[in-house]
Amino acid sequence: MKLIYKGKTKDVYSLGENEVLLKFKDDVTGTDGVFDPGANTVGLTIEGVGKSGLRMTKHFFELLEANNIATHYVSADLNEVSMTVKEADVLGKGLEVICRYRAVGSFYRRYAAYCEEAQKLDALVEVTIKDDERGDPVISEDTLAMLGILTNDAYQEVKALTQNICGLIKSELAKKGLDLYDIKLEFGRNKTTGEIMLIDEISGGNMRVYKDGKYIVPLELERYFLG
Amino acid sequence: MKLIYKGKTKDVYSLGENEVLLKFKDDVTGTDGVFDPGANTVGLTIEGVGKSGLRMTKHFFELLEANNIATHYVSADLNEVSMTVKEADVLGKGLEVICRYRAVGSFYRRYAAYCEEAQKLDALVEVTIKDDERGDPVISEDTLAMLGILTNDAYQEVKALTQNICGLIKSELAKKGLDLYDIKLEFGRNKTTGEIMLIDEISGGNMRVYKDGKYIVPLELERYFLG
Repeated sequence: MKLIYKGKTKDVYSLGENEVLLKFKDDVTGTDGVFDPGANTVGLTIEGVGKSGLRMTKHFFELLEANNIATHYVSADLNEVSMTVKEADVLGKGLEVICRYRAVGSFYRRYAAYCEEAQKLDALVEVTIKDDERGDPVISEDTLAMLGILTNDAYQEVKALTQNICGLIKSELAKKGLDLYDIKLEFGRNKTTGEIMLIDEISGGNMRVYKDGKYIVPLELERYFLG
Repeated sequence: MKLIYKGKTKDVYSLGENEVLLKFKDDVTGTDGVFDPGANTVGLTIEGVGKSGLRMTKHFFELLEANNIATHYVSADLNEVSMTVKEADVLGKGLEVICRYRAVGSFYRRYAAYCEEAQKLDALVEVTIKDDERGDPVISEDTLAMLGILTNDAYQEVKALTQNICGLIKSELAKKGLDLYDIKLEFGRNKTTGEIMLIDEISGGNMRVYKDGKYIVPLELERYFLG
């Protein structure tokens, strides 16, 4: 198995035949040792966080599959803490698609002049480019089109998919009394078909979830949600 | 005449009857004593820059009027270095609408991973909120709508107006061998009719213009353009 990419929270190995293996690690993003799903540096290592993230990811990808949503998911191996997925080309050099139900995190930091912290938002979709050096800047639909990253049609497809996917995730969480504030997804194109599909993972590491007004860290979230 | 607002580059006086007087100052935006139309602090004072800006503004607003574009312009008094305009409510708490023909300034700083410096852009419109404390963040059409700042229809109206206005300005400049790289406009609603119209000024202070590949500072621009 050939290592093809060492990521912040996952390593990626080639399996041949248009499949890759994602090996989940115990590293999470954050700043100064404090977990922050919006950060783009590894902030700390928490034992068991990789396996916990994989369990959540497996659950959600299987839910999406049952709802006929295109994802890269093939199978998960909880013992090996790894997931087999279809190979994908990321959009551009990697985009993050955020769906917001509450004004928190970078959104609130940017637009505090126009909103209260944690005020409700109606599945607002924002796209940022993955660019650590420039702090993952927000990018508009028109700019994505102008720079040849995503056509307007592809943008609308990604936006609709995002609202659909996140609506399902939000409902699932709500069944356990958990309140989704925001979540970040990543999409790619299936390397064989070119189809846009959901890639990466879906876990506490890329969402902010609250219970009774209190933020729930990823490991705790998995216990509430799957435990 | 009652002073109602002290701006960075202009002071505003009430004239009653839904009109206000803008008094142009010799202050320009910049950082550390260097002029930068994209900066949001007063960087330096240049004698004559107020009058020069007013001459440009008068020229362009009269051009727009001749093209039936709604603006706040009523008249200009070059001796008093002032302009009489229709009273307006700014959009939100003040938005800047940027039209880009080249990837320079904050655009290039944000998206350098996807473009070459000064590469051509096709009248790309971006909106930023005026918020010095938060560095004038970019805001998307959907976010403007979600935060109740601008409906999607109003956004499309502002975008079309911007491309129309900036196309006229770009053509005028081109007649003198001057190349418009980017320009920032401001819109408001006519206080009596509610109509969206162009407000503020149009001068070297809010555009980047090049001649033979070299950036032209505002005072020099006025000499090339009107001199």
